[in-house]
Amino acid sequence: MSSDWQAQAQAFKDRLKSSIPLECQIPSHLLPLPPDCSRITTSCGLFSTFELEILALDATELRDRLASRQYKALEVASVYCKAAAVAHQATNCLMAFFPDVAMERARWLDEELARTGETVGPLHGLPVSLKDIVSVTGQQNTMGILSTVKTMDFDAAITSALRDCGAVFFAKTTCPQTVMHLETHSFLGPTLNPFKTSHTAGGSSGGESALLALRASSIGVGTDIGGSIRGPAALCGIYGFKPTLGRLPLSGVISPMSGQSSIIGTNGPIARSARDLDLFMSAALGTEPWNIDHSCIKMPWKLDDVTFIGGPQPKVGVMRHDGVVMPQPPMRRALQVVVDKLQAAHVTIVEVAPFDCKESWEIARRAYFTDGGKRVREAIKASGEPILPLTQWILDQGAGELSATDVIDLNNRRTAHQAAYHKWFASLQIDVLLCPPAPGPAPKLGTSKYWGYTSMFNVLDVPAGVFPAGLYVDASDVREGRTEFWGASDRQAWEAYSPEAFAGLPLGLQVVGRKWEDEKVVRAILIIDQIVHASGVR
Amino acid sequence: MSSDWQAQAQAFKDRLKSSIPLECQIPSHLLPLPPDCSRITTSCGLFSTFELEILALDATELRDRLASRQYKALEVASVYCKAAAVAHQATNCLMAFFPDVAMERARWLDEELARTGETVGPLHGLPVSLKDIVSVTGQQNTMGILSTVKTMDFDAAITSALRDCGAVFFAKTTCPQTVMHLETHSFLGPTLNPFKTSHTAGGSSGGESALLALRASSIGVGTDIGGSIRGPAALCGIYGFKPTLGRLPLSGVISPMSGQSSIIGTNGPIARSARDLDLFMSAALGTEPWNIDHSCIKMPWKLDDVTFIGGPQPKVGVMRHDGVVMPQPPMRRALQVVVDKLQAAHVTIVEVAPFDCKESWEIARRAYFTDGGKRVREAIKASGEPILPLTQWILDQGAGELSATDVIDLNNRRTAHQAAYHKWFASLQIDVLLCPPAPGPAPKLGTSKYWGYTSMFNVLDVPAGVFPAGLYVDASDVREGRTEFWGASDRQAWEAYSPEAFAGLPLGLQVVGRKWEDEKVVRAILIIDQIVHASGVR
Repeated sequence: MSSDWQAQAQAFKDRLKSSIPLECQIPSHLLPLPPDCSRITTSCGLFSTFELEILALDATELRDRLASRQYKALEVASVYCKAAAVAHQATNCLMAFFPDVAMERARWLDEELARTGETVGPLHGLPVSLKDIVSVTGQQNTMGILSTVKTMDFDAAITSALRDCGAVFFAKTTCPQTVMHLETHSFLGPTLNPFKTSHTAGGSSGGESALLALRASSIGVGTDIGGSIRGPAALCGIYGFKPTLGRLPLSGVISPMSGQSSIIGTNGPIARSARDLDLFMSAALGTEPWNIDHSCIKMPWKLDDVTFIGGPQPKVGVMRHDGVVMPQPPMRRALQVVVDKLQAAHVTIVEVAPFDCKESWEIARRAYFTDGGKRVREAIKASGEPILPLTQWILDQGAGELSATDVIDLNNRRTAHQAAYHKWFASLQIDVLLCPPAPGPAPKLGTSKYWGYTSMFNVLDVPAGVFPAGLYVDASDVREGRTEFWGASDRQAWEAYSPEAFAGLPLGLQVVGRKWEDEKVVRAILIIDQIVHASGVR
Repeated sequence: MSSDWQAQAQAFKDRLKSSIPLECQIPSHLLPLPPDCSRITTSCGLFSTFELEILALDATELRDRLASRQYKALEVASVYCKAAAVAHQATNCLMAFFPDVAMERARWLDEELARTGETVGPLHGLPVSLKDIVSVTGQQNTMGILSTVKTMDFDAAITSALRDCGAVFFAKTTCPQTVMHLETHSFLGPTLNPFKTSHTAGGSSGGESALLALRASSIGVGTDIGGSIRGPAALCGIYGFKPTLGRLPLSGVISPMSGQSSIIGTNGPIARSARDLDLFMSAALGTEPWNIDHSCIKMPWKLDDVTFIGGPQPKVGVMRHDGVVMPQPPMRRALQVVVDKLQAAHVTIVEVAPFDCKESWEIARRAYFTDGGKRVREAIKASGEPILPLTQWILDQGAGELSATDVIDLNNRRTAHQAAYHKWFASLQIDVLLCPPAPGPAPKLGTSKYWGYTSMFNVLDVPAGVFPAGLYVDASDVREGRTEFWGASDRQAWEAYSPEAFAGLPLGLQVVGRKWEDEKVVRAILIIDQIVHASGVR
């Protein structure tokens, strides 16, 4: 049995490897790669200046150049496929790779544009990658579990929407076993952080984040039930957005716990610029996906309608910590640097004491596996593969199998908590909340545990996004001496950090809003990002 | 114990009775009332011509006259309080009656209008009644169970919204034990149908419907998790609307199964005209309740934005039966008469085979009491009062206490069913569906069982409303001979009906849409209602 699963996993990996053309392989003289391979795409020598120019653009700019016929969809698809292959060799970020499908699609898009004089849609020719569980017709989903590997015969509704927009799908990316780690480790092995390969790319959309951080996709589709978009995006120095539940269509995105309704995941964009978050949301909702998916609320994307309290800039509440785990020194620095820049740009900052984040986590940990993990344990055991330590960890956070009465009580507790946040937020008289998206930068592989900084906003079901602070861990981020801790998670986060081990990792921050105010959050990220990066750090 | 609960129930009824002033009591020479007391307000001799004029108006017209100062809020409140007292004596429809609170509020509204020259809101001075479980500060909720009687110290969010609109609350109305009958019977006794007091007013918003049918409230707030707005409204010959979940704010409406998330109830209007449904929705959503209640979707009410497939009139699919219970003869006649009138008015009619309604009911019956009824059994037993037969009936429909895994499976089954309906509806190329809201007119007291015609649209979570066909059961509605039946419920419905027993009861029909298309459904009801009643039947 044991050798069986290993053989199966190996066969899967071999098939994936064989889908990478020889000419996309990193030259052997560059191997083994250094721990920081964040510039591998530019340094590996496989790309021409023209190709590197294409890879350097965010999705919005690339879309514009495709639409104006400066580039052909085919040449863009070709270069992104090559980049994805390279990114995979560096970080193990792909689950499926289908350049042939992408080329055929790109060719068709070029023909359509030539024939009609019009783009197929607002994402015409844009290479779009998708996380494992976002179904694509003819491609596999795995959920990070060998026994549940399945070739899908339909598109998820979000896939379909992006396809209608003219997207070119070329790769699906890794997710962790059960899709429930804040890292990305499955029978395919771990996905590595491009900035430091001994550290995680985050999870569960770690494959997407590594790929995008390496400029090897234009925009990606992640999913988030506890931080799975925001965590990895922040840890890889890019952008991500988790909308309010129902703003994007959910059907065809299949997790092992689909049907559990106490805390529900959503999909959302992982991107390389703030404006790309807007591009994704406006393009996807422009297809009126509520017509094909009952789970999507009929609520068009209206970024231009956003108004802030008393002015053109958002009023920002700063929550420096969650009262459970003190952020590590570089995260605190990043927050302070950003606050300073915002204040210098005359953004009003309000210091905000933490909301009841402990309660958020208590609800989340009970909600994820209301069946006590029975279903995923069975699925994992079916192939004989082992339950990975981070799978075991999240399963251990639960309270065993619940009864329907327990579920009812949990739902009521969650609803009360959501109502309390809604009132609390209104009482603060702010537009958005600025806070850490995690205790710190990307943890060493296998050590990511506390989810509180992101899972909180899943429990609360409010829009939240992340952006890079343009800062990286350096020697100045010394670990302070502490002898007293708020609890085990707090001590663990403190112990895990040292400036030496974490040096060079990027730092991101999180922006959060009130339910339905998705546009306000994205607009705030746009403005904050512009201020933060005005000096051209990135 | 037994005498205890009876004493408690009697004390409750006595307090209620004592809240009715002597001058509002139906003259003893009229007692006992005839079975048809639908005209008791006009015939009892307690109202002046001026007062009857006020009672004859729908909410929209009354609101206009209040806003233009043709009437004072105080005189309107006074006459509606008197009418409610009369209605209660005829049908046992009130759970709480608070004329003093109403008068004080009305007086304040009059003063505000005089002082500022402006109305307080779009429902300025309108007498609004609320179903038991819709919380009002200082008034009781019972859920139809003695042990859960409680004076509330907050307004439900919908109450608060209507209060902001200038509503005058004067009464709360009956609901059945556990709020889960399609009749209205609790420790307060049964609520009777105004047209035939041996028949039910329907439920669970039976008190509201009896009150409004007797012109003793201007507009009412009901709730609906299986037909509780639409059933009683149809059975009492008035209008009702159940919106898509989340269109109206839900917080502060408390049922014994709050927190059960497989099928969730919503509140909505019960009204005396089609346009009053629009008035309620636009006024309530005009307060932007999403600012105070996270459960309410930020989706303004936009009736004017509705467009129909290919023209100014809706394209109507007609579903004549649900394939489980054949509608009784008068219901089939009502549907045919309405279809004939629509066709005569050039509305396009499409005959539609039933959707998988059996599946809807299978899901609904499992979803209502996922705890196997444990919670409500305990609540009922706490006072010693008996479990009523219709409570026992609905509890018996369930599948015992579910595990969290069962709940997950049920949710997935429901989601698949919703997705199938969404596609099915789109494939029909219609705007709305026209169908029966029940197997027939109001059943004899204690015999209402099959919920399928309404609960289906709760499982599917789609907007649905009812309007009166302007027709009543008469001798021509003979029962056909049948020897074969689709099942027990079908036989039961056939057996229960006879034209003699049901003569004089009103007939209503149901209009249903797709998720989020609430405005389209209300607009379709407005148009259909206008065509149906063009001859001035009502």
